Amino acid sequence: MKQPIQLDGVEVANDIKRSLADDVKELKQKGIVPCLATILVGDDPSSATYVRMKGNACQKLGIESRKIELPEQTTTEELLLQINMLNNDEQVHGILLQHPVPSQIDERAAFDAIAIEKDVDGVTTLGFAQNAFGFAHYPSCTPAAIMAILDFYQIDIEGKHAVVVGRSPILGKPVSQMLLNKNATVTTCHSRTSDVSSHVQQADIVVAAVGKPEFIKGSWIKEGAVVLDAGYNKGNVGDCDYEGCAEKASAITPVPGGVGPVTIATLLKHTVESAKRNHLS
Amino acid sequence: MKQPIQLDGVEVANDIKRSLADDVKELKQKGIVPCLATILVGDDPSSATYVRMKGNACQKLGIESRKIELPEQTTTEELLLQINMLNNDEQVHGILLQHPVPSQIDERAAFDAIAIEKDVDGVTTLGFAQNAFGFAHYPSCTPAAIMAILDFYQIDIEGKHAVVVGRSPILGKPVSQMLLNKNATVTTCHSRTSDVSSHVQQADIVVAAVGKPEFIKGSWIKEGAVVLDAGYNKGNVGDCDYEGCAEKASAITPVPGGVGPVTIATLLKHTVESAKRNHLS
Repeated sequence: MKQPIQLDGVEVANDIKRSLADDVKELKQKGIVPCLATILVGDDPSSATYVRMKGNACQKLGIESRKIELPEQTTTEELLLQINMLNNDEQVHGILLQHPVPSQIDERAAFDAIAIEKDVDGVTTLGFAQNAFGFAHYPSCTPAAIMAILDFYQIDIEGKHAVVVGRSPILGKPVSQMLLNKNATVTTCHSRTSDVSSHVQQADIVVAAVGKPEFIKGSWIKEGAVVLDAGYNKGNVGDCDYEGCAEKASAITPVPGGVGPVTIATLLKHTVESAKRNHLS
Repeated sequence: MKQPIQLDGVEVANDIKRSLADDVKELKQKGIVPCLATILVGDDPSSATYVRMKGNACQKLGIESRKIELPEQTTTEELLLQINMLNNDEQVHGILLQHPVPSQIDERAAFDAIAIEKDVDGVTTLGFAQNAFGFAHYPSCTPAAIMAILDFYQIDIEGKHAVVVGRSPILGKPVSQMLLNKNATVTTCHSRTSDVSSHVQQADIVVAAVGKPEFIKGSWIKEGAVVLDAGYNKGNVGDCDYEGCAEKASAITPVPGGVGPVTIATLLKHTVESAKRNHLS
């Protein structure tokens, strides 16, 4: 049986990071250290892991990582105060508020408190629309990572039928808009879609962004489709049944090692771009 | 042959206007006259007609209509200055910049200069995202009109497959998001879609927002589908071949007398809501 192309996220991420290394060097020669501030609220172990991974990735590339950790019972007001301090701190080029925050916090208000020029994770309401209209500086990182993988592997998007499963404000919705802006015909499915499989079966490009382990089955995949799995669930599995989908797909991202590493590389890229925009213009 | 339900935009518009009449009366008793400022740049006769229709509709309902007319050669800076004056004018509750503006003007910059609380036509970048996230005060008027028609006729949206043909920032994109937020599965097609008919043929709900006369044929319509035609082209025809589509549809908007009148009623509604928000809170 013909094996699909494995869309190697580590390779794409390394490619991005290589070009960033030069930028970081150039900035440092001018006395500027790109800096990403991460905010972690509460004790969720997965969130702590994600934040740590992002911090480590910064460090490896010479980007400063400033870690803010706030207690589980933090109020919206306290969080907004913290974000405002970072907005006003000239040494900080990017702000990442790790999602999800504890339930007492108004997450949308917190996201929207991030200054648009430091919204390197692409979570603000305004940033969403700028991305939907095709002129955002910093699209949400996971959608941007998916687009970067398609670009790296020179996969045609124009005129293709893309089916996105998921409609969250930082993943399903923005990636749908980005594919649309690249001239794909885009169908967005979600938890209330009556027959997800019938839509996925028609897709030339499938984006899985649903957050359910191995939700998308091999039998749903059209022969030769490209499958991008943005899911990462307990047990290190994605939203697609990898084995099943790989039998039909012409190209597929593994989990782990697919979209994830590129998401982190994209965050670093946005942070460096923000530093350049602030200081080199 | 069974005739489809004709979705009567005039009836929906009258229903909206009836409820507005009471609001306007209440505002006036408090000494407040809701006011919509319209800006027309240049000499395009269709644009002039649209602005006049909107002004007349205001007048009939007791809403003040302030008409700003600027010459064809207006610059972006001059237009922004005008918009800023209206933003700062406490007597003005809504600002409508008639689309399209002459080509030397940066239309996006002009739209985004409108204060969000006066963006009753729903054209700002921020307003688009608020609508996509489901919390806009004033969604774009034509998309909101389409949703109002579906609501008035109690047409189920949840779990239905809606196919939107068109992806403009004030029509195709926002109506796709609104249908998605009402739990439709949404496919957005456009000029680069390889086979539009194959997508439309699957739709339970078709939204035509393409701007090409009678582009959508009766043969594309699934038996029993609901057809909403937001097009208005030369010769008083919509984007759908009405006769052909009516043979297959279970319900369909005529052109004229469909989406158009509801769009204007929605603009009035947003203006009155803005006046209420400003003065009655």
